[in-house]
Amino acid sequence: MDRTDLVAAYRGYIDCLNAQDWDALGRHVGEAVSYNGETIGLAGYRSMLIGDFEAIPDLRFTIDLLVCDPPHVAARLTFDCTPHGMLFGLPVNGRRVTFTENVFYEFEGGRIVTVRSIIDKAAIAEQILRRPVSRAPGLP
Amino acid sequence: MDRTDLVAAYRGYIDCLNAQDWDALGRHVGEAVSYNGETIGLAGYRSMLIGDFEAIPDLRFTIDLLVCDPPHVAARLTFDCTPHGMLFGLPVNGRRVTFTENVFYEFEGGRIVTVRSIIDKAAIAEQILRRPVSRAPGLP
Repeated sequence: MDRTDLVAAYRGYIDCLNAQDWDALGRHVGEAVSYNGETIGLAGYRSMLIGDFEAIPDLRFTIDLLVCDPPHVAARLTFDCTPHGMLFGLPVNGRRVTFTENVFYEFEGGRIVTVRSIIDKAAIAEQILRRPVSRAPGLP
Repeated sequence: MDRTDLVAAYRGYIDCLNAQDWDALGRHVGEAVSYNGETIGLAGYRSMLIGDFEAIPDLRFTIDLLVCDPPHVAARLTFDCTPHGMLFGLPVNGRRVTFTENVFYEFEGGRIVTVRSIIDKAAIAEQILRRPVSRAPGLP
């Protein structure tokens, strides 16, 4: 896949998530997909997503920045949502939170086979606990 | 800059950090650089790095994955180090921790002008507090 095709494939994947079109997920995600070092497989991936939308009914994946270098895509995703109950161990309880995720994908045969994600949980903690969790040092 | 030159520029930047060659930092980082939405400038960037190495004397930036799509670079960096005292608000106190950073850079004229970084602070918390801080949900 060249860059143009891979960008289109990735945008199709994000559209699939936002449409919660779980029957189509296998067109975008490989059977043996791994997430942060663990092989969760397509079924595990689908379960994770369904759980995400249950916890966050207004969840929407928005691409802030897309860096494409076949076979890899890196994306900075932004979220602006009101999760029910706990999120990432934090008592969000329906409050509005905004946060980002920096995530790398590897594609094989047009499907995602590896995901390496970091979510900015500290930003959510700051919004919920209303105190700076950590300001320094940062690492560039 | 084409992809090959930008990869070389980025690797040169990482080498500069690992050599703690602060006099050369201005060759890699722009005067008005912003870090996670804040314009800290080259002087602020240098101060942040010097602070990082004071807090973490054995700090070393290792590129695990490099995704280059000019003018952007996305990198997954790994760290394996023994920070003194507190790190990111956590009492590390000389224990060994391993963690990752997913970070995006924008280059202009061969220099970094924008950095958008997320460090996996939750992973450090798990290692220090010896309990899972959050396992679910993840977001792909």
